[in-house]
Amino acid sequence: MIILDGKAVSEKVLENVKETVQNLSRQPHLAVILAGDNTASKIYVNNKQKAAEKVGIKSTIIELPAITSEDNLLSIIKGLNADDDVTGILVQLPLPEHINKNKVMNTISPQKDVDGFTPENVGKLAIGLEPYFYPATPQGIIMLLDEYKIPIEGADAVILGRSNIVGKPMAQMLLRRNATVTICHSYTKDLETKIKTADIVISAVGKKIVRCKMDRNNSCVVDVGIFRNDNGKLTGDVEFDLVSPSCGYITPVPGGVGPMTIASLMYNASKVY
Amino acid sequence: MIILDGKAVSEKVLENVKETVQNLSRQPHLAVILAGDNTASKIYVNNKQKAAEKVGIKSTIIELPAITSEDNLLSIIKGLNADDDVTGILVQLPLPEHINKNKVMNTISPQKDVDGFTPENVGKLAIGLEPYFYPATPQGIIMLLDEYKIPIEGADAVILGRSNIVGKPMAQMLLRRNATVTICHSYTKDLETKIKTADIVISAVGKKIVRCKMDRNNSCVVDVGIFRNDNGKLTGDVEFDLVSPSCGYITPVPGGVGPMTIASLMYNASKVY
Repeated sequence: MIILDGKAVSEKVLENVKETVQNLSRQPHLAVILAGDNTASKIYVNNKQKAAEKVGIKSTIIELPAITSEDNLLSIIKGLNADDDVTGILVQLPLPEHINKNKVMNTISPQKDVDGFTPENVGKLAIGLEPYFYPATPQGIIMLLDEYKIPIEGADAVILGRSNIVGKPMAQMLLRRNATVTICHSYTKDLETKIKTADIVISAVGKKIVRCKMDRNNSCVVDVGIFRNDNGKLTGDVEFDLVSPSCGYITPVPGGVGPMTIASLMYNASKVY
Repeated sequence: MIILDGKAVSEKVLENVKETVQNLSRQPHLAVILAGDNTASKIYVNNKQKAAEKVGIKSTIIELPAITSEDNLLSIIKGLNADDDVTGILVQLPLPEHINKNKVMNTISPQKDVDGFTPENVGKLAIGLEPYFYPATPQGIIMLLDEYKIPIEGADAVILGRSNIVGKPMAQMLLRRNATVTICHSYTKDLETKIKTADIVISAVGKKIVRCKMDRNNSCVVDVGIFRNDNGKLTGDVEFDLVSPSCGYITPVPGGVGPMTIASLMYNASKVY
């Protein structure tokens, strides 16, 4: 069994991004909007800024109070769309409840949408066209699988969770690479059988849901979940000690998908349209 | 085993559409663009026009020679977008090879896109928002399943084929209804096992690919394929005589999905935004 070292691979990706950025004729500039004072969001934004600095991408954080109006947020985004110096725009989620997330996503220019969440980029991904940006987490997972040369074409891939951020774009991206994709969720029956018999399992649920031995000993288990258990320790969706001896490849939590997501986001932020 | 009577259900849907149209304050008007002289396309367009007439929807067919330029086609679409009398626009596929289909789809106003193929409508479907129009074939299939009260929530649904017209939107629509969805294609291994163990099989491949008995005797097999066999007889993807005794519900070819697609399209064409 091989542990997929997201930390190490992400460093490699960031090195490549840094080199790309150095060779660009202009410096990419990522604008990050943070509305409200969600503690986790602040940490995420901070990590993104640190990563950007590391690879030579300029970043600006625009902090807005939780009571900021939707109109104000939209007009800030429009300003950033029009600003030629800004090459990427990222709105940290979740947004305050009174703000319509879809309206916000609809306003970001698809050419600056480094998260790949705008309808145009989502639609292109769904149709099989090239979006300007692929969503960071699934893209980071594909980078990790590719680094370890894990076969995707023809593989039976089972995705747990159907969010717009991970599950659904992950399905599209694996389908593009010719995997047979099954999307599971809270209504899925016989979940254990579906997990066990898969070649690739991607779990993005946020609770301890993968708790069975795998049938195929070269299968690959990717854990996107990250949360604190009752003892306050960071853990993921996968019962690591139980699952890891039965599979071929597995990601740790932390140190697996997390760092890959940041590296993948920096890869996106280095693209200038 | 019950044969899903697409012919009868489609008549019922068309009756409802007719009533809806009669109660509208303005008559819907469907513009159909037919470029080139593909014989099959002509038959399809003709059938659509007949159906429109039946339900009281005005239709105009715009025939263009195969050598028509992309620019000309795009400017015709823009004219239709701007024409307040036209409520729906349909570009019959396939288009002549020198015309970029994606550019064409990108030009149709999403509010008049009765086929549901424009990026905005596809993107909304993918994100889980309400598109202006759902693609006709998968929508017609859902109508048929609902008419026979076939449970979708929690069902294991296996889709064969991943086209933008049927397979991919079908996956999204079944997922919305809380089915567990597996998308299969030419790279899929152990296809027979996947088919057999499903609750719902939707086959949209265009060759005789479903040729095994089903394991679950209340399963439902939907045949989207339609082509002529070596004897010139219309047939579908499913080996009907072999499969039908082993399942609970099955669509015939012809008389199954075909008429439902037309009825579903008319349902779309009756919507005025």
